Amino acid sequence: MTRPSDAKDPLQTSRRRFLRDGAVIGGAVVAGGLATNEAIGAEAENLPPNVPEWMKTPGDAMGSQLYGTPSPFEKNVVKNIPKNLKQYLSASGRTPLQDLDGIITPNGLFYERHHGGVPTIDPAQHRLMLHGLVERPMIFTMEDLRRFPSESRIHFLECSGNPTYMKPFGKTASDLVGLLSCAEWTGVSLKLVLEEAGLKPEAKWIVAEGADAAALTRSIPIEKCLDDAMLVYSQNGERLRPQQGYPVRLLLPGFEGNMNVKWLRRLHVTAEPVYSREETSKYTDLMPDGTAREFTFYMEAKSIITRPSGGQRLTEKGFHEISGVAWSGHGKIKRVDVSVDDGKTWQEAKLQEPVLTRALTRFRLPWHWDGQPAVIQSRAIDETGYVQPTLAELLSVRGENSFYHNNAIWPWRIASDGEVTNAAA
Amino acid sequence: MTRPSDAKDPLQTSRRRFLRDGAVIGGAVVAGGLATNEAIGAEAENLPPNVPEWMKTPGDAMGSQLYGTPSPFEKNVVKNIPKNLKQYLSASGRTPLQDLDGIITPNGLFYERHHGGVPTIDPAQHRLMLHGLVERPMIFTMEDLRRFPSESRIHFLECSGNPTYMKPFGKTASDLVGLLSCAEWTGVSLKLVLEEAGLKPEAKWIVAEGADAAALTRSIPIEKCLDDAMLVYSQNGERLRPQQGYPVRLLLPGFEGNMNVKWLRRLHVTAEPVYSREETSKYTDLMPDGTAREFTFYMEAKSIITRPSGGQRLTEKGFHEISGVAWSGHGKIKRVDVSVDDGKTWQEAKLQEPVLTRALTRFRLPWHWDGQPAVIQSRAIDETGYVQPTLAELLSVRGENSFYHNNAIWPWRIASDGEVTNAAA
Repeated sequence: MTRPSDAKDPLQTSRRRFLRDGAVIGGAVVAGGLATNEAIGAEAENLPPNVPEWMKTPGDAMGSQLYGTPSPFEKNVVKNIPKNLKQYLSASGRTPLQDLDGIITPNGLFYERHHGGVPTIDPAQHRLMLHGLVERPMIFTMEDLRRFPSESRIHFLECSGNPTYMKPFGKTASDLVGLLSCAEWTGVSLKLVLEEAGLKPEAKWIVAEGADAAALTRSIPIEKCLDDAMLVYSQNGERLRPQQGYPVRLLLPGFEGNMNVKWLRRLHVTAEPVYSREETSKYTDLMPDGTAREFTFYMEAKSIITRPSGGQRLTEKGFHEISGVAWSGHGKIKRVDVSVDDGKTWQEAKLQEPVLTRALTRFRLPWHWDGQPAVIQSRAIDETGYVQPTLAELLSVRGENSFYHNNAIWPWRIASDGEVTNAAA
Repeated sequence: MTRPSDAKDPLQTSRRRFLRDGAVIGGAVVAGGLATNEAIGAEAENLPPNVPEWMKTPGDAMGSQLYGTPSPFEKNVVKNIPKNLKQYLSASGRTPLQDLDGIITPNGLFYERHHGGVPTIDPAQHRLMLHGLVERPMIFTMEDLRRFPSESRIHFLECSGNPTYMKPFGKTASDLVGLLSCAEWTGVSLKLVLEEAGLKPEAKWIVAEGADAAALTRSIPIEKCLDDAMLVYSQNGERLRPQQGYPVRLLLPGFEGNMNVKWLRRLHVTAEPVYSREETSKYTDLMPDGTAREFTFYMEAKSIITRPSGGQRLTEKGFHEISGVAWSGHGKIKRVDVSVDDGKTWQEAKLQEPVLTRALTRFRLPWHWDGQPAVIQSRAIDETGYVQPTLAELLSVRGENSFYHNNAIWPWRIASDGEVTNAAA
């Protein structure tokens, strides 16, 4: 920022709280003739400001992008794909959380996780079958599903392996917990569809099957199906992307991502769970006593600081806002605490309104960095009173062999040169 | 929907409220051997359901789209560009409202309106100058702006010529009011930035200038600048698209779109408005007495039914949900009324929570279409008590020569064959 006459200004220290005193950032180049405060104050009415190249000729024409894309200067803000990925058995692409603001994830950056590639489904050919313990088995076209009353709700989705293992691998927020996104979903209440078919009294589970090459199959307790579960066909206004289950997916707000079956083709109402691959050999946690935790539906309260976070750098001392996201499968976030002294003390962050149930909640804390090394971290508390644990607390309960459902606090280390790294790696 | 045994089922009429009785929609083709209810009920456990082609081979690999795009089957859901557009003087592309759900507009379909093409701006080179009646003139880099405390809010943006003229041209909801979109915006409070610079007592207006080839310039009253105005750099999580002002735009929630200056390069604090082209010869309304309404900042309450709407077709009698969006520059939508009998009677629609200030609000009304011709329409009432007018009411006040700020009710006509057209055209 160009402000050459700082020394003359008695108000500067109290009023200029957010930017570094006396900073001159490229101003001489860009502001051209505006070399002194006097020039700006007294002569700027007559002096033309520097005119950049892009004002001198017309820009791109309307219609050059009938469906818009980001600026070429944002070309590195893309999904974060793990190296050495086995494409068809266990593919994933993470949301670049550290580059995003607010709570909505744009559809182009929504995280992906699939087990048989992304099918290209013709919605006119797609069918959803509802059968098993119902009075009236049914097969729905997409047009049928669109005929039902609709609802729109903002909810997060998170893979239960976010991250996998109890070890905090990764350099960036995306590496650690990028299998997390949030969108406005529109669809039909599953309860309404089940009422149309009529559940039999012995109906206790619904087995959902996807129309991908993996035929991904999960068992859903009937209580969730009759609560806030939805069959969704739109995401952030437009139809679902193929990677998110086009033309229709199951949405189970707060449940682990894998259960939110994409490309939904079958709902089989049963008395028992089906014990599919994805709920036995996968998506269960091996406990210290040799048993496995299974059917761990709800994602527990969690949070991550996204700015500053791993891979970023504080370029100077002074004011920095600490910002991140918090979420809980059990409902609303009640509070987020932030520590800037390696967990010794905690301050309450401000939550961005509206705080929505089972949605990302953006939190922020003003911070003055004194240029010394620091460890910063956040912990979420949800409306049930649950407090996000430290990794040590989680390990003491789960042991070292647990693979999924790691909701530990992630600390970031800030070096004296401003570089931010994973403090637990 | 395939349900061959309807006749045997005494519950069908009461329970199957939403879908047509006895409909058989392509079921025989898709469900294969599942030709009778008995087959589904008794044998479906053993019968494999029809397996579509896309389940037989792996789908697209992860990483084929590092930044995702919609399904190829949605290729017609794009911005709606008026024919014979004069590209560089008055370009616009409309949001396809009739194809969208919820309230969030995906960034790729956000409406565009520009006067000198879309510049491609390097954020590292971009500067924002704040000068005029301030204690400390300043020039900000994008990094400077990112250093300020941030806020995220969901607000609509609407062009004041939406549509232009008082005549209800157009076939679709997009043709009529598609210069309307809604997003979650993140940026810094303009008030905070102005406090950093220190306003002089005589500061009453701020002249905002864009860095496009039109150097689009508008005068903003200081009261708005000190209220909820923002300098925004992100939209729906990611950085602004070039078409929306990358790397920084002014956001004046509820004010006509044109004032929300994109590619913002200059804020000149003044005692008087500048009377620029865009607030004198344009964006003013010629009244019957020969005077011009000028500085008409706030967009008044308005609504549109998007489903069913012009260009769509009801394929059968029975249950149809009527759905649309309502908005007001003055605050929250309090109520939306819907008429299905050409305005004779009105019913209160259900509003999707949360209802946010100066944001789109989705409304819905269940409706049973009896197959007879009908005229449907909606009217919005905002928290100030203002009621969206009919076109006749608006014309009686504004006359025939008004060009902008048309917020009249738009009725849709439904023919007995289900075709939906603009009833006022």
